[in-house]
Amino acid sequence: MNEKYTITFLPYGRKIEAESGESLIKAARRAGVHINASCGGAGLCGKCRIIIDEGEVEGGRSEKLSQEDYNSGYRQACLSTIKGDVVIRVPVESGIKGGVLSTEIPERHQAGKHVFDIDSLKKEGIFSPSVEKLCLELSPPDKSDNRSDVGRVVHGLADQYDKHGLNIDLSVLRKIRRVIREKDFLITVTLELAVNNKFKNRIINVQSGCWSYRNFGIAIDIGTTTVYGQLIDLNNGVILAEKGSYNAQIAYGEDVISRIIYAERENGLKEMREKVLKTINDIIKSLLKKKTPPYGLTEDEINLDEINSITIAGNTTMTHLFLGMEPDNIRRAPYVPVSTFFPPFNAAELGLDMPSHAVALVYPAISSYVGGDIVAGVMGSGMYRTDLLTLYIDIGTNAEIVIGNKEWLVCAACSAGPAFEGGGITHGMRAAQGAIEDFSLNPVDFEPMNLTIGNKPALGICGSGLLIIISTLFRHKVINQNGKFNKIDCARIREGKNGREYVLVWSQEAGVDYDIVINEVDINNFIRAKAAIFAGVKTLVENIGLSMADLEQIILAGAFGSYIDLDSAMLVGLLPEIEADKIIYVGNGSLMGAKMSELSNHIRKDVVEVVRRMTSFELSEISEFKDNYIAALFLPHTDINLFPHAADYI
Amino acid sequence: MNEKYTITFLPYGRKIEAESGESLIKAARRAGVHINASCGGAGLCGKCRIIIDEGEVEGGRSEKLSQEDYNSGYRQACLSTIKGDVVIRVPVESGIKGGVLSTEIPERHQAGKHVFDIDSLKKEGIFSPSVEKLCLELSPPDKSDNRSDVGRVVHGLADQYDKHGLNIDLSVLRKIRRVIREKDFLITVTLELAVNNKFKNRIINVQSGCWSYRNFGIAIDIGTTTVYGQLIDLNNGVILAEKGSYNAQIAYGEDVISRIIYAERENGLKEMREKVLKTINDIIKSLLKKKTPPYGLTEDEINLDEINSITIAGNTTMTHLFLGMEPDNIRRAPYVPVSTFFPPFNAAELGLDMPSHAVALVYPAISSYVGGDIVAGVMGSGMYRTDLLTLYIDIGTNAEIVIGNKEWLVCAACSAGPAFEGGGITHGMRAAQGAIEDFSLNPVDFEPMNLTIGNKPALGICGSGLLIIISTLFRHKVINQNGKFNKIDCARIREGKNGREYVLVWSQEAGVDYDIVINEVDINNFIRAKAAIFAGVKTLVENIGLSMADLEQIILAGAFGSYIDLDSAMLVGLLPEIEADKIIYVGNGSLMGAKMSELSNHIRKDVVEVVRRMTSFELSEISEFKDNYIAALFLPHTDINLFPHAADYI
Repeated sequence: MNEKYTITFLPYGRKIEAESGESLIKAARRAGVHINASCGGAGLCGKCRIIIDEGEVEGGRSEKLSQEDYNSGYRQACLSTIKGDVVIRVPVESGIKGGVLSTEIPERHQAGKHVFDIDSLKKEGIFSPSVEKLCLELSPPDKSDNRSDVGRVVHGLADQYDKHGLNIDLSVLRKIRRVIREKDFLITVTLELAVNNKFKNRIINVQSGCWSYRNFGIAIDIGTTTVYGQLIDLNNGVILAEKGSYNAQIAYGEDVISRIIYAERENGLKEMREKVLKTINDIIKSLLKKKTPPYGLTEDEINLDEINSITIAGNTTMTHLFLGMEPDNIRRAPYVPVSTFFPPFNAAELGLDMPSHAVALVYPAISSYVGGDIVAGVMGSGMYRTDLLTLYIDIGTNAEIVIGNKEWLVCAACSAGPAFEGGGITHGMRAAQGAIEDFSLNPVDFEPMNLTIGNKPALGICGSGLLIIISTLFRHKVINQNGKFNKIDCARIREGKNGREYVLVWSQEAGVDYDIVINEVDINNFIRAKAAIFAGVKTLVENIGLSMADLEQIILAGAFGSYIDLDSAMLVGLLPEIEADKIIYVGNGSLMGAKMSELSNHIRKDVVEVVRRMTSFELSEISEFKDNYIAALFLPHTDINLFPHAADYI
Repeated sequence: MNEKYTITFLPYGRKIEAESGESLIKAARRAGVHINASCGGAGLCGKCRIIIDEGEVEGGRSEKLSQEDYNSGYRQACLSTIKGDVVIRVPVESGIKGGVLSTEIPERHQAGKHVFDIDSLKKEGIFSPSVEKLCLELSPPDKSDNRSDVGRVVHGLADQYDKHGLNIDLSVLRKIRRVIREKDFLITVTLELAVNNKFKNRIINVQSGCWSYRNFGIAIDIGTTTVYGQLIDLNNGVILAEKGSYNAQIAYGEDVISRIIYAERENGLKEMREKVLKTINDIIKSLLKKKTPPYGLTEDEINLDEINSITIAGNTTMTHLFLGMEPDNIRRAPYVPVSTFFPPFNAAELGLDMPSHAVALVYPAISSYVGGDIVAGVMGSGMYRTDLLTLYIDIGTNAEIVIGNKEWLVCAACSAGPAFEGGGITHGMRAAQGAIEDFSLNPVDFEPMNLTIGNKPALGICGSGLLIIISTLFRHKVINQNGKFNKIDCARIREGKNGREYVLVWSQEAGVDYDIVINEVDINNFIRAKAAIFAGVKTLVENIGLSMADLEQIILAGAFGSYIDLDSAMLVGLLPEIEADKIIYVGNGSLMGAKMSELSNHIRKDVVEVVRRMTSFELSEISEFKDNYIAALFLPHTDINLFPHAADYI
C-alpha cells in the first residue's frame, strides 16, 4: 500500500487523504472541489492553475505556465501528482466563488464493503473448496494386509479424514502404484468433493509426498468484450494473480448478436469457440507465470499440474460459444437457449489447457438473456443468502435485474441500448484512455472540469462520464427535465446539427481535431436508456406486489456499475433513491461469483436450487412496462415523489 | 435347429437322439457304447467298423474298408455322420462283449439349465439394462414456453417416464439443438441409468425420431488365452452375435506371470494393453458385421453408434493390462493388485473402438488371484441370490473357488498347475483340433476308443481328455489308487522312459510320428492337480465350519468345466460326490456375468456389495490345507468315505 497524505484545499478548507502518485486534479474532484479544466487533465488548456501554499507536488508544469508563475508557486493541477502533505490554494479564476460543490459525495469503489467475501464464507462455515488435497501416511502392505493400492488409499481417506463413497479417475489408476511407493507410502490425494453427501467424491490425482498446502484454482469471467481470470489459492482464498484480456471473438463483432450470426456460418461456431478458448488459455498461461507470493510456499512457480479446478461464468451467448453449443435460437423469438444447466466437466475435455484431472464448473443460466454471469453475481454477492430485499443490477447494453432475498428471486433483462457503453452518443466512446470519465461545472460561468482516463487529451465521453455530465448539467439547471438546454448565457452552449449542444472540450485542447460536445440527441438517448432500466426495475418490483420503497439494498455490478456516481445516478432517475450505505459495488460480479464457487462447494450446491427457483420475467410481456417506461422519460421522472431529493433541482 | 433323429445301437438296444451331421462315433460315445477307435476318429485305424441294419448314414468309407464290406453295410463309424433315423449293429471285433459301459452318463453341456438367465431376471423383476432408450414427443417452444432445449427434454423425461436427476454429456449439449428439430421434436434419448436412485441418470445420446427398439450392448470376457464377445439386444436379451479370438498377448507368454514380466519392461505395459485392445476391437468389429436377425428390426446393419454399453470381465492380471494399471505386484508376495474396484468408464477413454457416448463397466475383482471373471460368474449365475449352499468352481491353471449363498460368500484361489490345460503332460496339448477329448476302454482287451476334437488324426491329449482317460483307466483297474499301472496283460501297456505307460494311439494311426501315450508321471501330475483343487474346496468348506456333505449345489465354470465328465471328475476325486442334477454347467462364467450385467442394472448395483462382503482366504495360510492336499493324493482320496460310489472300483 502507498502512504496516505493529507491534501488541503483553500480557500474552502476542504481536506482529503490521497495516495502518493495521485493526480492533484483527481484529488480535487474527489474532494468536491471544482477547478476549471476543460481539456480533460492533459495539461493542454492551462486553466487549472493552483498555488502551492505549503508542501510540494511532483511536476505541474507545461509551456502554459511561465517560469515566473512557477517560481511563485503556481502549478497546473492536472499535471501535478501527490508526493506528500500539501496545502493548495485554488485562485478565483480557476475555481468558483461559491465554494465547494456539494458536501456529500459518496466514496467510490467500495467493492467488498458489504460483499459476501472470504470472511463471510468462513463465518457461515461454508469455506470449502470443491477440490481438497489431503496427505495420507499409509502402512505398506504385508502378508496380513494385502489390500489393493487403491483400497489402501480409500481406507486411509475413510480412517484419517472420514471421506467415503469414492470414485477414482483412470489416470490415477494408472499411476498410483508408483506414486504411493515413491515416498514410502506418504502421498497426497486430490479429491473432488461431491456437491452433496448423496454423490460420490472422486479421487482425481495422487502425488508422492505431502503437498496439501499447494492447491490452486482458477476463476474466469467470459465477457462479450473482455475476459478476466484469477488464480486462487484454494487453501486461503488469496488471489495470487489476475489477468484481463480482450475476448478474441471481438474481431467478429462487438455484441452478442453479431457473434451468434457469425456462429451460424459453416465452421463459425468452431471458430468462435476456438477464439475464446485461445483467450482463456492465454490468460491461464499468464496467470501461471505469476510467482507464488511469499506466504509460506517454498516453490517458486505454480505448475499447471497443481491447478485442480476452474469455474467459468459468462452470459448465455458466451457460454454457448465456449461450450460449442449452437446459439442460433438465442437471437430469435421465443429466445430458446440450448441449455441453461451444465454438468461438471473435465477441464481438458472443454479444450482448456489444464491438467487432465482438473474439474471445470460452468455457471448455469436462467434464460437467453439472464446468463451465468448474473447467476454468478447473485451467488458470489451472497444475495441469495440475505434477509434484505435486494436489487442486483448489472448495467451494460442490457441491464440484467434480479430482485429478491434468500426466500425468493425474480429476474429480467432489459435492453438499455449502448448509451452506457458510449454507444449512440455523438462523441461517445468506450471507457479507454482519453475518455472523459468525470466532470464538474463552474456554476458561475459554466466552465467545465473534465477528467479523462489516464489524464490523456480528451477523445470523447465514456458511459460513466456521460452520466455525470448529464446529471451535473441538470443539477445546475443547464438542461431541464426533458433534457433540453435552458436559455442560459454561456459561451459553451450553441446551436449544433442535432439541436443545442454544450462544448465540453474545444478542438485545440482535445486529442481530436473537433470540439467534443454533448447535444440534445445524446441526452435523449441517455434518457431513453436510463428510463428502460428504471422502468424495468419498477415493473419487476410492482409485478411481485412490492413498491420501490421496499428495496432495502442495491448491489451494482458490471464495469459501468463499478464507476457509477451514485448521486448522479439517482439525480437523473437511473437508480431509485436510496441511502448511499445501502448500495454495494461488486465490480465484476461474474468473476466474483466464479471465485466464490472455487472457494465454496456449498455455493456449487446451492446454485442448482437458486437457478431452479429464480423466476424469469419477460418485461415486454408485462403491460405496465410501457407506461413505466414513458413515465421515466424525464429527469429524474414524471413522478417526482419517487425522487424527493431531486426536487431541489427542478 | 437341426432335426433330431433316433440312433439305435445293437446288440445293446441303446437308443439315443442325434442331430443331422453328428459323427456316428460321437453319438455312440454319448450313448455309452464303446467302439474300438484308437486313431481318434480320423478314419486311420479302421477299427471302428459297424454295420447299418436299417436307415442310412453319410460317408463312412475310406481305403480301410473294402467295396465288398461297404456293400454288405459296413461303415467306419468315425467317418459316418447322421442324416436320418438309423439302426447300427456293433460287431464283436469293434465293440465289447459285456455290452454298454455304464447306463448313466449325465448329459453334457447343460449350460443354462438352472442358470440365472434372462427369464430369471424377468421373474425377479430385475431385467433392466443400464442403458435405456426412450422416445419423447415434445411440444415445440413458443412465447409462453421458451424453456431451453435441454430443459424441454429433461421435463419430458420426468413427465413421460418419471426419470429425474439427470446429467448430460458435452456431446449431447453440442448436437441437441439440431437433433430435436430434425423430426419435429420427436426424439430418442439414450439414458445411462444410475446404479441407484441416489445417483444421477445421464443423457448420453439423442437421436431424431423414435429408435427405442434399437438398443445394443456388448459383453466381453478377457481370458488369458481367449477373448470372447457377445453382441446383445438390450431390449430382449437376445444374443445377436458371438465371437471368440485368441488374446493377442499370447505371443508374449501363455500364462499371466509371463505377461506381467513382459509388462515390467519399458513400454511393455503399453504393448500388452494395445495387444488386448486390438483383440477386443477386432471382436467388436466382427460382432457388428452380423446381420440383425429378423425379429422386428427393419434395418439390416447395426451401426456402431447404436452400441450404448459394454461390460468387460477378466482375471485380475487381464484387467490390469487392459486398463493400463501396473500389474507388477500381482506376482510378488504379498500379491497386491493396484485396484479391485473400477468406476464406470467412458468406453472410448479406454481405447475401445466404441462410440464416444458408450459406457464401459469393468468387473471388480476380489484379489490378485480371484478376479473379475470369477465375480462375474458369481453374479451372472445368480449364486449370490440363491438360498442353496453353493460351490462355484472355475478350473484352469488356477482353480478359483467360491462357496456361499445369498447370505455370505468366501473364496480362494488354488494353484492346480497346468495339467487341466494339457500342460506338464508328456503328450498334453490345448483343447484344439486333434486333441483326444473323449475316451473309452474295451474292458476285455483294453483297446481304446479315442475321440479327437474335429475328428482329426490324434495329436495329443487335452485337459478333459486326460480326466476321462485317467478315470477310465482307474475304473477298469488298469491303474491303482496311487496312479500306478496294475500288472495287466495288454499289448498297449509297456515300460517307458517315465515309468509304465499306456499307448493311446500308435504312431502310424496318429497325426504325429510317435506313439501317443499316457505314463505314470503324467498320471501323478494329474493327481497332484486334482488334489490341490479338492483340498482347496475341503479346506475352505471346513474353515467356515461346514463339511463337504453340506454342499447343495455345484456350479462349474470355465472351458475345462464345460467339457468335464462328471462321473470321471467324481471318480478320480476332483469334485466331491454329489447328485448330477445338483451340478450346473455355466460354461464361460465370466462372459455370462458380463452379459447379465448388460441386462440388469440391479446386478451392476449388487456387485459392489457382493465384492465387499466376499471374504478371500489364502489357502497356504491355513494349516489344514497341506494335510488335505496329502490326503487327496490318491484316486479318489485317502478317505474313501468321502467317495462312496467310487468304492466299487477300488
